[in-house]
Amino acid sequence: MKDLIGIKELSRQDIEEILNTAKAFKEVLGRDIKKVPTLRGKTAINLFFEPSTRTRTSFELAEKRLSLDVLNFSVSTSSVVKGETLYDTLKTIEAYNVDYIVIRHSSSGSAKFVAKHTPASVINAGDGTNEHPTQALLDAFSILEVKGRLDGLKIAIVGDIIHSRVARSNLYLLSKFDTEIRFVGPPTLLPVETPENVKIFYDLKEGLKDVDVVMLLRIQLERQSAAFIPSLKEYFYIWGMKKEVFSHLKDDTIIMHPGPMNRGVEIATEVADSSRSIILRQVTNGIATRMAVIYLLTS
Amino acid sequence: MKDLIGIKELSRQDIEEILNTAKAFKEVLGRDIKKVPTLRGKTAINLFFEPSTRTRTSFELAEKRLSLDVLNFSVSTSSVVKGETLYDTLKTIEAYNVDYIVIRHSSSGSAKFVAKHTPASVINAGDGTNEHPTQALLDAFSILEVKGRLDGLKIAIVGDIIHSRVARSNLYLLSKFDTEIRFVGPPTLLPVETPENVKIFYDLKEGLKDVDVVMLLRIQLERQSAAFIPSLKEYFYIWGMKKEVFSHLKDDTIIMHPGPMNRGVEIATEVADSSRSIILRQVTNGIATRMAVIYLLTS
Amino acid sequence: MKDLIGIKELSRQDIEEILNTAKAFKEVLGRDIKKVPTLRGKTAINLFFEPSTRTRTSFELAEKRLSLDVLNFSVSTSSVVKGETLYDTLKTIEAYNVDYIVIRHSSSGSAKFVAKHTPASVINAGDGTNEHPTQALLDAFSILEVKGRLDGLKIAIVGDIIHSRVARSNLYLLSKFDTEIRFVGPPTLLPVETPENVKIFYDLKEGLKDVDVVMLLRIQLERQSAAFIPSLKEYFYIWGMKKEVFSHLKDDTIIMHPGPMNRGVEIATEVADSSRSIILRQVTNGIATRMAVIYLLTS
Repeated sequence: MKDLIGIKELSRQDIEEILNTAKAFKEVLGRDIKKVPTLRGKTAINLFFEPSTRTRTSFELAEKRLSLDVLNFSVSTSSVVKGETLYDTLKTIEAYNVDYIVIRHSSSGSAKFVAKHTPASVINAGDGTNEHPTQALLDAFSILEVKGRLDGLKIAIVGDIIHSRVARSNLYLLSKFDTEIRFVGPPTLLPVETPENVKIFYDLKEGLKDVDVVMLLRIQLERQSAAFIPSLKEYFYIWGMKKEVFSHLKDDTIIMHPGPMNRGVEIATEVADSSRSIILRQVTNGIATRMAVIYLLTS
Repeated sequence: MKDLIGIKELSRQDIEEILNTAKAFKEVLGRDIKKVPTLRGKTAINLFFEPSTRTRTSFELAEKRLSLDVLNFSVSTSSVVKGETLYDTLKTIEAYNVDYIVIRHSSSGSAKFVAKHTPASVINAGDGTNEHPTQALLDAFSILEVKGRLDGLKIAIVGDIIHSRVARSNLYLLSKFDTEIRFVGPPTLLPVETPENVKIFYDLKEGLKDVDVVMLLRIQLERQSAAFIPSLKEYFYIWGMKKEVFSHLKDDTIIMHPGPMNRGVEIATEVADSSRSIILRQVTNGIATRMAVIYLLTS
Repeated sequence: MKDLIGIKELSRQDIEEILNTAKAFKEVLGRDIKKVPTLRGKTAINLFFEPSTRTRTSFELAEKRLSLDVLNFSVSTSSVVKGETLYDTLKTIEAYNVDYIVIRHSSSGSAKFVAKHTPASVINAGDGTNEHPTQALLDAFSILEVKGRLDGLKIAIVGDIIHSRVARSNLYLLSKFDTEIRFVGPPTLLPVETPENVKIFYDLKEGLKDVDVVMLLRIQLERQSAAFIPSLKEYFYIWGMKKEVFSHLKDDTIIMHPGPMNRGVEIATEVADSSRSIILRQVTNGIATRMAVIYLLTS
C-alpha cells in the first residue's frame, strides 16, 4: 500500500496487520531509548490546513521515533495566504521529493486527491467530514488492549455523528469486525441514512444499555456542530456523559474520547478522570499506531 | 566566501562552481537516502521576518539533508513583537553561536548588515527589493539542465520588475553570461534606468519574439505591485502569459515562475501546466542549489 | 532531582554543581562540533503558553546540542484555542511519554503543578511572577565568568521588581551566597515586604553606589508594568541606565539585562553597547546553563 486515505478501503486483515505492528512499536516506546533507526534519511512533511496540535504532535513524535526528518507546514504561515491554490501548494510539496505527506484539510476528499497526484506516501490526518483513519486505528488498538478483542463487543458512538470523521472511520473499522454498533444522539446530529448494521438511539440511557465501549464525540464549538444544539448546558443535561448515566453502565464499560474534551459539555469531569476512562491511553497509543502506519506504507 | 548576500558580488566562476556542486547534490537527492552527513553537529537558523513557506521549507530541507540542526525563527512569535530592535534580535542570534543564518527581511541591505556583524555564514533569502540570490542560482541551474547552456540564450523577464528582487538577482546573474536580457512589462513596473545590456519592451508579443526562456514574475497581491496596475483582469489581458501568447513562442521556449503563482493573473492555467513549464523543476532544484550554497560557504 | 521548578528549592551546593557542569558544556560549545550524543533517543517538548522566542530558542538549542529530539508546542496553534483546559493539555502531553517538559506559563505555580502530575522531568521556563530559574543560573554563571566569584559582591537589581520572576529567582540565588543585594526602583515597582538581606533604594545613584553588578529589568510594555509608571520617557529620565549614571559607577561594574531590551527606556544605547555590558554573554551562556540543567536532571 502506498497511502492510508481511509479505513473504508482496508480489509480486516490489513487492519490486523497495522494493529499487530503497533503492538511491537508500543514495546519500543516502553524502552529507555524510544527510537528506531528504521527510516533514517527519509523525510516526512506534516501539512496541516486546519489547526491541530494534538494530531500533529502525535504524528511528529511517531515520525521522529522512526528517525525521519520532519517538516511542519501550517496554513497560517504558508503561501496559501498569498493566494496560492491548494493544487499548486501540493505540487510544490511534491516537487520537494519528500517521502511521506501527512495531510489534514477541511475538504472531504483532499487526502485522496493529494495521494493520486504524488509518488510520496500520503496519510490522511483528517479530511473534512470524511475520514480520520489513524484515529479509528488507535481507538481499535486501545479497545483491543483493554478488552482483548473487538469481535463480540457492543459499541456506542455518542454525539455529533453527522459531522464527525472520527465516527465515520470508526464505523468503517468496527463494521469489519463482528461488533454491534450504535449511534446515539439527537436526530439533528445523526445521519439520515445509516448502514444496516448500525442501531440508532435517540435516548442516551437506552443507547448505552449493555454496551462494552462508549465512544464520545467532541462538540466542535469552533465549527458547525454548535448550530445544531440549543445550548451547551442543555446538551450536557440530555446527552452529556454524566456521573449518573455512567453509574448505570456495566462495571467494565470503558469510556473513550478522541480529544480535546469539553468537560461539562459532552463529558463530566468525574467520568473523564475515572479509572474506566481510557482517554489518555488513546493518546499514548496514537504514537505507536501512527508509527505502524508509516512503517507499513514503506515496506 | 563567508556569506552569500547577492549575485552582484559573484564572479562567473563562483556561479559555475555553485551550479556544479548543485548538480552533485541533485544526484544525492535522487537516491533512496537523500541525506549526507557533511555538516552534522552544526546549526542553521532560518530567520524569516517576512512570511514564506516556500523558501523557508526549501532551505530547511536543504539544511536537514546536509545533517544540520535547524532552528526556525519567525517574526510573528518573536521578541520583535515585544519591541526589540532588529539590531538586538540579530546580536542575540549571533550570541547563540549558530553556524549559518538564513535571513529574509523586508529591508534592502539587511542581509549585508547581518553578515557584517556576525562570524556566522549568512545567506540572503530575500532582502526587500534588493536580491534573492539563491532564486537566481536555482533558475540558472534549471535553465542549464534543460537547455545545456546559458551562453547564447535570449531571456525575457516579464512583469513587475521594479519591485522584484528575483528580477534583480537574475539580471546580475545572466549579465555574467553571454545572454540577451529583456525586460517586458508596463512602464509603471519597469525601472526608469536599465543597464546597457538590457532591452526594454512595452509590448508582450514583441518582447517574447524568439526568446528561449520566459521568466514570469509574481504580481504581489499582498504588497506594493497591486497599486501599479489598473486591475488584475486587465493585467492578465495585456501582460498575462495566455495560451494564445504561448502559441506564438518558439517550440522549445521554456516558461519559469518563482512561485507562488497567481493563475489567471500573470499566467494561464494551460501554460502553467504545459510540458514546457519548468516551474516545478525550479522547486526541486531549489533544494540542491541551496545545499550547494551552504556547503560551499563552509569549505 | 527530577525537576527544576525554582531556585528557592536549591541548595548552594546544587547551584554550584549546575554552574560547574555549565562550564564543561561551554567548552563543548567552543568546539567545531558543538554537540554531544548524551541524550540521543530521548525527547523534549517545549510547552510555551506565553510568546517567547528568546528563551524557547535557547532551550531548543540546548536540547539539540544534547542530541534530544525536540517538539515545540505553542499556545497559538494548540487545542487551547479549542477550549481545552490546561489540565487536559498537560495530561495529553504526559501521555506522549516525553522525557523532558520545558514549560512557560502566565500562572505562578503552573510548573510545579505540571511536575507533580507527570513522571517526565519538568523545567520551569518562567511561571507568572514566580520564578525563572534558568535565567538566574545563567546570570550567576555570567557573573562568575567575569568576576571569578559571587561571594563578596554588591549587586543591584533595578526596575520593575514586583512583577519580575527574573528578580525573584535572582534574589533566591544570590541569597545563598555571601552577597549584598539591593532593590532599586520607584516604590510602586518594589515589593512592600522584602527579605532582611535586601536593601531598598528609591534613588538610582544612591542605589548603584559601589555596586559590582547592575541587573536591569525589562519594562514589560506588553504587560502589567506600564500601568505603574507615568511614562516611558519619565521612566528613562529617572530610572534609566543613562550614560551619565553609568559614568558614576566603579570602573569594573558590569551591566546585565535578561533581554529583550527596551533601548531608551531602561537602558541607554551607549550603556547597552559598552564593553562592560555582558548582555550578549548572558545569551551565549544561556545555552550552556540549560544544557547543564537538562543533563543533571537525568543523572
